[in-house]
Amino acid sequence: MGLHQRPPLLLTQGDPAGIGPELSLRAWLERDAESLPAFGIVGDPGHLGHVAKSHGWDVPIAAVEPHQIQSAFSGSLPVIPLSAPVSAEAGKPDRANAPSVIESIETAVRFVRAGTAAAVVTNPIAKHVLYQAGFRHPGHTEFLAALASEGDPEAYHPVMMLWSAELAVVPVTVHIPLADVPSALTTDLIVLTGRIVARELRQRFGIENPRLALAGLNPHAGESGAMGTEDETVIVPAIDILRADGIDVTGPLPADTMFHARARSRYDAALAMYHDQALIPIKTIAFDEAVNVTLGLPFVRTSPDHGTAFDIAGKGIARPDSLMAALKLAARLGSP
Amino acid sequence: MGLHQRPPLLLTQGDPAGIGPELSLRAWLERDAESLPAFGIVGDPGHLGHVAKSHGWDVPIAAVEPHQIQSAFSGSLPVIPLSAPVSAEAGKPDRANAPSVIESIETAVRFVRAGTAAAVVTNPIAKHVLYQAGFRHPGHTEFLAALASEGDPEAYHPVMMLWSAELAVVPVTVHIPLADVPSALTTDLIVLTGRIVARELRQRFGIENPRLALAGLNPHAGESGAMGTEDETVIVPAIDILRADGIDVTGPLPADTMFHARARSRYDAALAMYHDQALIPIKTIAFDEAVNVTLGLPFVRTSPDHGTAFDIAGKGIARPDSLMAALKLAARLGSP
Repeated sequence: MGLHQRPPLLLTQGDPAGIGPELSLRAWLERDAESLPAFGIVGDPGHLGHVAKSHGWDVPIAAVEPHQIQSAFSGSLPVIPLSAPVSAEAGKPDRANAPSVIESIETAVRFVRAGTAAAVVTNPIAKHVLYQAGFRHPGHTEFLAALASEGDPEAYHPVMMLWSAELAVVPVTVHIPLADVPSALTTDLIVLTGRIVARELRQRFGIENPRLALAGLNPHAGESGAMGTEDETVIVPAIDILRADGIDVTGPLPADTMFHARARSRYDAALAMYHDQALIPIKTIAFDEAVNVTLGLPFVRTSPDHGTAFDIAGKGIARPDSLMAALKLAARLGSP
Repeated sequence: MGLHQRPPLLLTQGDPAGIGPELSLRAWLERDAESLPAFGIVGDPGHLGHVAKSHGWDVPIAAVEPHQIQSAFSGSLPVIPLSAPVSAEAGKPDRANAPSVIESIETAVRFVRAGTAAAVVTNPIAKHVLYQAGFRHPGHTEFLAALASEGDPEAYHPVMMLWSAELAVVPVTVHIPLADVPSALTTDLIVLTGRIVARELRQRFGIENPRLALAGLNPHAGESGAMGTEDETVIVPAIDILRADGIDVTGPLPADTMFHARARSRYDAALAMYHDQALIPIKTIAFDEAVNVTLGLPFVRTSPDHGTAFDIAGKGIARPDSLMAALKLAARLGSP
């Protein structure tokens, strides 16, 4: 590598029947217009060439080793080959492709942990397809945490952040029924999440004194107990602990009035207490550009904030905005 | 009244120590620039004159009867006098003013029910001040429903809509703890709410075939039961009943992806299942302009989408945008 070269980004294949392959190709075609960082895909060169051809896109594919990505990137899409070819029809998920989906993630993590890649950007996967093939992790992020921890399931607590230039949000509880939120929300969980967010805003985002804003759980943050007690009994104690750590925290704030433009200028990240409280505001204002960032892992991982979209895969209409934003943010966070 | 004159709007005083008085005066000062409809305040001419003077605003006050509002409005702020003077210090709520707050609302409702006024626009009140004085209604809206129903508490089911030019949302459950939402949310309540919303979008908003979008309760609208069952067992049956009524309904939709610009162009109003699910998106995109509209009453009532703001009352910095939007919408909805 030259003096000014950094390790490249590795992009996983994702489900080969979803929109991941076509978005990856479109992102490469936009590499100059969007000033994208160099990236390689862990995938099947033959399959990616086939997808390019089916759309009529001129994308030369180069099968390479990770250290060749930087030099290959300007003239061709660098691909780190999987151990076997991939055959997939757009829009038709097939459990036969599950091993390639998993191998792509495992390979990317191995290279990023070895320092050969700067960060991992993951294309969307379909959990139900992987489950049919025996996959036993609750989701993509938990699988990455398991790979990172190498056997110790408690080693890392992955934290999902949805990031855009205008707003960053973190749901403290995530993919659980709304009825389970009040019991799942504990002071410890809020503190653990807040500490990870503050640490990574400092270390990876370069924000010296990160400002966190914590949403209340109940309407109007409970109005001093008039509408629910958790804001006082669960969230306020967490804020006290985080402040004792020296972290700049405000809250619990009424969730409805903390996300408009003036309000969100007062903090660097908002911690929401449940999925929709976090995702409604960011997807309302930054639907196409939001990026999913996993905090709390020993490496940088970003992903586009959308799914496999089997219903439009292969039609060439899916927008690469979120994937390109994920690549840019990964390059920023993955810099030494 | 001349041929082109409609009954005027009546604005209630609200808490006289809050920002209501100064916003009312500022709205009148903006009447030409904002093309505001004629309105009169049910309040104390002396108090309002005092507030104008304290801010250095030139607002002549005219004590009038409702039928004189239209002719007085261009040259002075018409005030329908209360039975007793009001003495209030900005930012210092006082239970001694509770009778005037209540009388103002009762008087405005009496005139609008008699057809002397086209609609009621309410300034914000402080429930805790009224409670100290013996007020026994859960809130402003319930008090209006009680006044409308004249003794039959079941006569009307008031429905809160937050409206802006870009988005209209209705929370099906409102001011209850989040933990109580799953049990409070019933198929009957969703159907009752949906029927009222569809009817008033037709009758008052003039939308011939209103399109309603129903949010799911759980993340991703439950993913077919993978994250909570209520989307399937409570919301889907309500959608079936509303469709059987001939109402255009979509849902249950994942709440996080239904409020961005492209998504919200597909419906006229969104029904959310709880307070923050409705109020986060509209306050994120239309914080200053959103209007609270009460549907389900036998008259039109709008109000600004903010509270008494005792902390900034008297400083002249509160923005009248929401009150002016409430006046404009009341005029539109109150037209025969």
